[in-house]
Amino acid sequence: MVMILTGDGKGKTTSALGMAMRAAGQGKRVLMVQFIKDFLDYGEIKFCKKHPRKIEIYSMGKGYVGIFGDKLPLSEHIKAAKKALEFARRKGLSGRYFMIILDEINVALKLKLLKIDEVIKFIRRLQPKVHLVLTGRDAPKKLIQVADLVTEMKEIKHPFRKGILAQEGIEY
Amino acid sequence: MVMILTGDGKGKTTSALGMAMRAAGQGKRVLMVQFIKDFLDYGEIKFCKKHPRKIEIYSMGKGYVGIFGDKLPLSEHIKAAKKALEFARRKGLSGRYFMIILDEINVALKLKLLKIDEVIKFIRRLQPKVHLVLTGRDAPKKLIQVADLVTEMKEIKHPFRKGILAQEGIEY
Repeated sequence: MVMILTGDGKGKTTSALGMAMRAAGQGKRVLMVQFIKDFLDYGEIKFCKKHPRKIEIYSMGKGYVGIFGDKLPLSEHIKAAKKALEFARRKGLSGRYFMIILDEINVALKLKLLKIDEVIKFIRRLQPKVHLVLTGRDAPKKLIQVADLVTEMKEIKHPFRKGILAQEGIEY
Repeated sequence: MVMILTGDGKGKTTSALGMAMRAAGQGKRVLMVQFIKDFLDYGEIKFCKKHPRKIEIYSMGKGYVGIFGDKLPLSEHIKAAKKALEFARRKGLSGRYFMIILDEINVALKLKLLKIDEVIKFIRRLQPKVHLVLTGRDAPKKLIQVADLVTEMKEIKHPFRKGILAQEGIEY
């Protein structure tokens, strides 16, 4: 099954993490590969590191692309994204994983760090071996076409609009 | 902060679970009280039972209300929902929890197992002591008004429409 979590609202990565927890609880092994993200202080990473168990998370991005003072050449971001996809492919083909989550891959596609055709090729190669979960806003139409389940997280009300800053344990 | 996860799409409970994992990873304690649900085979429950740690989950419902062969009098469902809310209130006031998740409480409201005014009173009593997360489709407008953050999970594409049955590790 191919699942996409997209939209401008909160809850995409956390939902993928909850799916990982659910699968792990049923004794299944889950891999999460994060694109773009390189922030190791995320609660989920600390959580999964602290308790050796069935969920592995790898942050393989180089951080924000072209914004917030990013000075890396785009080619470095592209290299990191390609490496992450290849890593997930190799892991997926090992047959050890029930589910592979490609966190923020939709954003990597939007930013042209990856080509849609290589991601669709990846999906076809791993289907139906592994359940795939792809997260990030702006999922491309071509991706939605190949997915079985697509949820859009829609922002109805958001506290940043009211000037509340990101909080540890909530936003990261 | 009061957060609502609503809508007809998938990802409400799993997103709350991911938030729990994120908070727990940052060393914070989380309580999830489930309304309506009484199914103990959920992966998340097994997961949190297997590894004693910072997330506690209690399923305090009596199962489906008025559908799928439910033969319980409505009064029993109401009693269970009231008990669950009171349990969450007492736990919340203990000061031990960073976050309390009331899973499917929106559905309990919709089914009139709880009154909106008692839930709002609960919220005011616990704010700003504890972060509250309320999940379930059909969140009432009055609840949305008191929330800081509201995300609607919108179903774009769903495999049950294609005749795929619920799978262990994915749906439960």
